[in-house]
Amino acid sequence: MKFALTILGVNSATPAHERFPTAQVLQVQHQYFLIDCGEGAQSRMSQFGIPRQKIQHIFISHLHGDHIFGLPGLLFSFGLNDRKSAVHIYSPDGLEEMITALLRPMEAILPYPLYFHVLPAGKSSLAFENELLTVTTIPLQHRIPTVGFLFREKERPKNIRPEKIAEYSLSIPQILAAKNGEDILPGDGRIVPNSELTIPAPPPRSFAYISDTIYDESIVPLIKEVDLLYHEATFCQDLAEYATATKHSTARQAATIAKMAGAGQLVIGHYSSRYQSVEPLLNEALTIFSKTVPGVEGREYEVPYVS
Amino acid sequence: MKFALTILGVNSATPAHERFPTAQVLQVQHQYFLIDCGEGAQSRMSQFGIPRQKIQHIFISHLHGDHIFGLPGLLFSFGLNDRKSAVHIYSPDGLEEMITALLRPMEAILPYPLYFHVLPAGKSSLAFENELLTVTTIPLQHRIPTVGFLFREKERPKNIRPEKIAEYSLSIPQILAAKNGEDILPGDGRIVPNSELTIPAPPPRSFAYISDTIYDESIVPLIKEVDLLYHEATFCQDLAEYATATKHSTARQAATIAKMAGAGQLVIGHYSSRYQSVEPLLNEALTIFSKTVPGVEGREYEVPYVS
Repeated sequence: MKFALTILGVNSATPAHERFPTAQVLQVQHQYFLIDCGEGAQSRMSQFGIPRQKIQHIFISHLHGDHIFGLPGLLFSFGLNDRKSAVHIYSPDGLEEMITALLRPMEAILPYPLYFHVLPAGKSSLAFENELLTVTTIPLQHRIPTVGFLFREKERPKNIRPEKIAEYSLSIPQILAAKNGEDILPGDGRIVPNSELTIPAPPPRSFAYISDTIYDESIVPLIKEVDLLYHEATFCQDLAEYATATKHSTARQAATIAKMAGAGQLVIGHYSSRYQSVEPLLNEALTIFSKTVPGVEGREYEVPYVS
Repeated sequence: MKFALTILGVNSATPAHERFPTAQVLQVQHQYFLIDCGEGAQSRMSQFGIPRQKIQHIFISHLHGDHIFGLPGLLFSFGLNDRKSAVHIYSPDGLEEMITALLRPMEAILPYPLYFHVLPAGKSSLAFENELLTVTTIPLQHRIPTVGFLFREKERPKNIRPEKIAEYSLSIPQILAAKNGEDILPGDGRIVPNSELTIPAPPPRSFAYISDTIYDESIVPLIKEVDLLYHEATFCQDLAEYATATKHSTARQAATIAKMAGAGQLVIGHYSSRYQSVEPLLNEALTIFSKTVPGVEGREYEVPYVS
């Protein structure tokens, strides 16, 4: 029942200091979701043991090169590996035209279906839903249309108290009904309240991905109490003016958002190439929010399963 | 007076076994020429100490993804590094449209001039010329329009024999005339033949890049006596039929071309991902052409300067 983020690339703009441009993978149980796809993402996945053929859904925050230039190679490689299962890409408008223009001259008839889903950039909307989770967009303020993503597990059924099965001789349908929150009528006229039969399910786990953005407190309500928060932290606070001018955030600002949201943990990243060491960024964030960890390529950030 | 090739990526189709897709840099004295630009080429340049800002001319053999997907990131990074000097890209038709489609949505107004030069793919032509060298295309037979490249140093002036300067009291203009092949009249009625005054300049050095191609003996006259030959060797000979079907070459075929051309040295590459070790490819080539070396990323292949 894994719920874990792996960072593939954590540098901003261009590769530097052995750091790759932005890309991440969220594993939810046996499913893998790719979030942004900077140049080299496919190599990083091989290196870090991520089974890239299992990726069916790709979420792109915006169409700046350092977040998408790994896509053509990945899609091309999927084809070369004779992939048959569909790939879905979710992004602000314009990506399909870019990818199509790239693949056309190389006679690349992909052996798998490729679907582009356009996300509205100015408002929060449901981008994706399956049996395990929902993905909701978070409108961000950057130089071009940009969204973040909130990945949230679906509510799980309640757990039945084993001793109650014997006590009331519960049938399978009664057990399922109880797990779904219903009270039970054992047949002797009594009503056994659901609270006696079950223990509540653990709360759904969540991850919020705040890609390139200016400091923006309006996102806080959308990521309230998130378990794991990735927030870009391109600069230190001494460059706050430059951050604002380029519509990026400082480490201090990222930590402030994490604190206001009551996040369980903050992972910072999208480091400017001017920082060979990320220590200054980390230390700055830690003064505001003690549960900050640095984004490091190849490192896994797990939200534990509470059974 | 360096003339050396550095391999940046040597795998075919997709990254595998820590090998990157195709890219190379040829250094001729203080100038650097990029030849094909697979995904990750810019990272490899940083890693191997190639000064990427010095690259002004990029030669692209064909528009398959594993030869070009590193271009968007490199061009984007040039811009981020506030490059001002022009970049010239030489390729078969269609690349400009691909790159333009990619850069448009990201509001990327490059701070440097970017020029695309379209190369005719069906015939040999002069692609580039400057004070140091010429670059001539070599038509190749692949699945889409493809060219190889012959880099050839220009003729250097002859070297004057120092003792002759004193013997004939040669003036500076006389020395320059002799270096350019003229006989000298010292003024006493004699004619001193140029052969007495000079030693011939060393022959110009050359490198031929034979990108993706079916086995094709018609290229041999174009690369006759080349000092350094890179020839793709995607498969071993047991897959010769498959190589022909996909318009690639085997290691044995690459070595045969090198032997027929009388190359000084053969570097093989563009290895299929099925070969985790390139030993079988190297050994096969060595049975035909003993001066074969394997293409290895980060390795430099120098053609010595004969003074």
